[in-house]
Amino acid sequence: MKLTKDLYQTSLSLLTDLYQLTMAYGYWKAGRSENESVFHLFFRSHPFKGGFTIACGLEYVIDYLDNFKFSEDDIAYLATLKGNDDKPMFEQGFLDYLADLKFTCDVEAVPEGTVVFPQEPLIRIKGPIAQCQLLETPLLNIVNYQTLVATKAARMNLATKGEPVLEFGLRRAQGIDGGLAASRAAYIGGCGATSNVLAGRLFGIPVKGTHAHSWVMSFDTEMDAFETYADVLPNNCVFLVDTYDTVQGVRHAVEVGKKLRAQGHEMIGVRLDSGDLAYLSIKAREILDEAGFPEATIVASNDLDENIINSLKLQDAKINVWGIGTKLVTAYDQPALGGVYKIAAMRKDDGSWDYKVKLSEQVIKISNPGVLQVRRFYQDGEYIGDMIFNEVEKIPEVATIIDPMDATRQRDMPANAEFKDLLQPLFKSGELTYRIPTIDEVKAHAANELKNFHAGVKRFINPHSYPVGLEKTLSDYKYDLIRDLRKRKQS
Amino acid sequence: MKLTKDLYQTSLSLLTDLYQLTMAYGYWKAGRSENESVFHLFFRSHPFKGGFTIACGLEYVIDYLDNFKFSEDDIAYLATLKGNDDKPMFEQGFLDYLADLKFTCDVEAVPEGTVVFPQEPLIRIKGPIAQCQLLETPLLNIVNYQTLVATKAARMNLATKGEPVLEFGLRRAQGIDGGLAASRAAYIGGCGATSNVLAGRLFGIPVKGTHAHSWVMSFDTEMDAFETYADVLPNNCVFLVDTYDTVQGVRHAVEVGKKLRAQGHEMIGVRLDSGDLAYLSIKAREILDEAGFPEATIVASNDLDENIINSLKLQDAKINVWGIGTKLVTAYDQPALGGVYKIAAMRKDDGSWDYKVKLSEQVIKISNPGVLQVRRFYQDGEYIGDMIFNEVEKIPEVATIIDPMDATRQRDMPANAEFKDLLQPLFKSGELTYRIPTIDEVKAHAANELKNFHAGVKRFINPHSYPVGLEKTLSDYKYDLIRDLRKRKQS
Repeated sequence: MKLTKDLYQTSLSLLTDLYQLTMAYGYWKAGRSENESVFHLFFRSHPFKGGFTIACGLEYVIDYLDNFKFSEDDIAYLATLKGNDDKPMFEQGFLDYLADLKFTCDVEAVPEGTVVFPQEPLIRIKGPIAQCQLLETPLLNIVNYQTLVATKAARMNLATKGEPVLEFGLRRAQGIDGGLAASRAAYIGGCGATSNVLAGRLFGIPVKGTHAHSWVMSFDTEMDAFETYADVLPNNCVFLVDTYDTVQGVRHAVEVGKKLRAQGHEMIGVRLDSGDLAYLSIKAREILDEAGFPEATIVASNDLDENIINSLKLQDAKINVWGIGTKLVTAYDQPALGGVYKIAAMRKDDGSWDYKVKLSEQVIKISNPGVLQVRRFYQDGEYIGDMIFNEVEKIPEVATIIDPMDATRQRDMPANAEFKDLLQPLFKSGELTYRIPTIDEVKAHAANELKNFHAGVKRFINPHSYPVGLEKTLSDYKYDLIRDLRKRKQS
Repeated sequence: MKLTKDLYQTSLSLLTDLYQLTMAYGYWKAGRSENESVFHLFFRSHPFKGGFTIACGLEYVIDYLDNFKFSEDDIAYLATLKGNDDKPMFEQGFLDYLADLKFTCDVEAVPEGTVVFPQEPLIRIKGPIAQCQLLETPLLNIVNYQTLVATKAARMNLATKGEPVLEFGLRRAQGIDGGLAASRAAYIGGCGATSNVLAGRLFGIPVKGTHAHSWVMSFDTEMDAFETYADVLPNNCVFLVDTYDTVQGVRHAVEVGKKLRAQGHEMIGVRLDSGDLAYLSIKAREILDEAGFPEATIVASNDLDENIINSLKLQDAKINVWGIGTKLVTAYDQPALGGVYKIAAMRKDDGSWDYKVKLSEQVIKISNPGVLQVRRFYQDGEYIGDMIFNEVEKIPEVATIIDPMDATRQRDMPANAEFKDLLQPLFKSGELTYRIPTIDEVKAHAANELKNFHAGVKRFINPHSYPVGLEKTLSDYKYDLIRDLRKRKQS
């Protein structure tokens, strides 16, 4: 098999957990597959002990949904699966149903780049329960990871206070797509460029890169290496100065920089990749400034993350550009976002909705019932609170929100506050109705969103908990439903 | 753009860091691109503070190399890249060179599933330096991740002491391929099956799955849900019992299990997905045994890893099958293997080799010179030590190995010990000469390899450090080279 290529030339409709297919079979066989249901994709807590999260991955999701179709090969494979009696797991009628299946759901979602909070639906899918079920795994796979990386990137960009962050993570990323999707999400989260050339080509992201230690090592001396590099790439000179001795390396860069200048080119700068970055960057800055290169940038890399950036800033490190790899693309300190996908409503025969709650002993794991929308209130250009409400029920004039984790946290949104609803229509009866924004629009949206939150929400240590709550009638209804379920359980 | 599909229908030759291309350009422009060089891919310390690592990813690597070719689109994209003077980064002659580039290297590698140690080359590439350089990033991307996951899976399977581990990680994996490659690596590392249906189809891995909470919630009562499930999938019944109340759920499963049995089917078991798994599994076992279901398995899931498995075992939890997702596929406690790829030799004009070392203040970051091979010694079916040696130099009769991290650790391999050399030829002058083993052969090889190491190497806390060293003449040569480089640096 051609793993790296043909693998993806197949339908991705089987990119799901087997239990989604066995459940879809169950629904179909029980005559319930077309029952209208509502599922929400959401997460339960911010990653990295942070105060905000950047929604990301929707363009992949749209593409996935727009191309959702089981291929003949998929069906042939499913026909081979057996149960514990060695008989086929699925009957032919169901396989025919899958072969003919067309995506017909309504989908609403929060645009990529939007700042989102725990419990808020990022995606809402309404449609036949079998379809909704099959989509759980791929949607979580895509959104969990890209949201995680976009958020990590935003944190790193906050730490550098506007200085460029370059994403260099491909070699340590979790798989081929781990690398590609990470480059995309990192750019949306605020990074200025990537080293990943394929991401550059496919997503239109700027790419950056100059040379590695192996370049220097392949020559007899560092000067030879820098001079040859300057000869052949005079318009892309960032010299990596730590192969042998960093300070000496900076002096070599300066020498070559002067020759470049005499030829009408300007050295971009130097890169530090090891050692004491605070000390060495200050030293490098002095040497560069004294030699007449005050504009030369100092790029630093070496297992950086937002905390090390903070520390380097506190030490007055003279770093202008930050190269970040492993810690960004793997979201090293929390490599998974625990996003979930839960059923929240089913249509009854009389056309009304039967709302659903998943119980748990842990309040954080109790899901929210309804056909949910999120309303974000703002005043004087600053966001002041989000209300999760049931779109199909009448809601009171005064918006009262109640924290789903802590019912004592209640507040009324000011009557004169403006608001916008976050979930926007993507698909209507399976037809794409959404204009997909460009990646630069998404990036700008993310930056703008972050700007509209109070600084406390964005700090790393004990961030302010931005007010998010269930609309009061929804909250009351949810408590009734929980009581009712607990009673039923005891019987 | 069709992100999830067309994205991969492209050439993957640009799946590399830009600096590999700028260096290749530099080599080409300086007339050095065809200079013969040797690079090694290796890692510097075991992941997870463990005592062993399982090499994985080679089938992807082979596929990547065997299909290495820049497409017209790749070249057209590269032609658009600009330097800091807004002029093209690459000249047309180099783009033509890339367009015509054919992979012509010799490649040797350690077969997938082999247990490997820090400093040992997993892959050795010999050939034109420009080609070797371009391959650094994709090879690291593939091998770092799959090796990490195969090792994590092996640890989890050691913890369950032979009880099946199922990989359920797709929804939390880092991207689409993060999920697929993880399922493959987890299977090689010892997992029995995956929930990922596409991985099942593409790699021939067994797939498992039954139903989720949403199935139960979509019915009025749990009994309804279980009964309907049993009606439609009588040969694949593992009932998820914790939607409302776990103990009650087990009793419901027993009721339905009895009905199933009356119809000639056997319930496979129950699954616990929350709560105190030690307490609940013991309770569930009692209920199942008393009701006449001693063969029913108890599957447990919920953020498990090897440490939690150990703890549950110590508490005599009655779990037979372990479902593991996030902690496995993201290698949660260490989500990246720090594999590197370093130049170790360049051919001189006279045909002899110029050996290369990368200096560093940190001894762990100093690379090894030579054209390296790894010899594994064994006695009475147990591995006793590995020797890294330079294949093109004569080595003494008595194999003395010296730890590259600590020169005081020296030992002679017994003269009567048997040995095998780990790196095997894959490509000769760019032509594939290797028979790619099946995934089940690789899995069996990994299991067999692990069996041949002393238990101390495999324990989780303070594992025994298996002896790995540089062959003495290589070690002596390396120290000379380092002294020489440090002197040259000072001049």
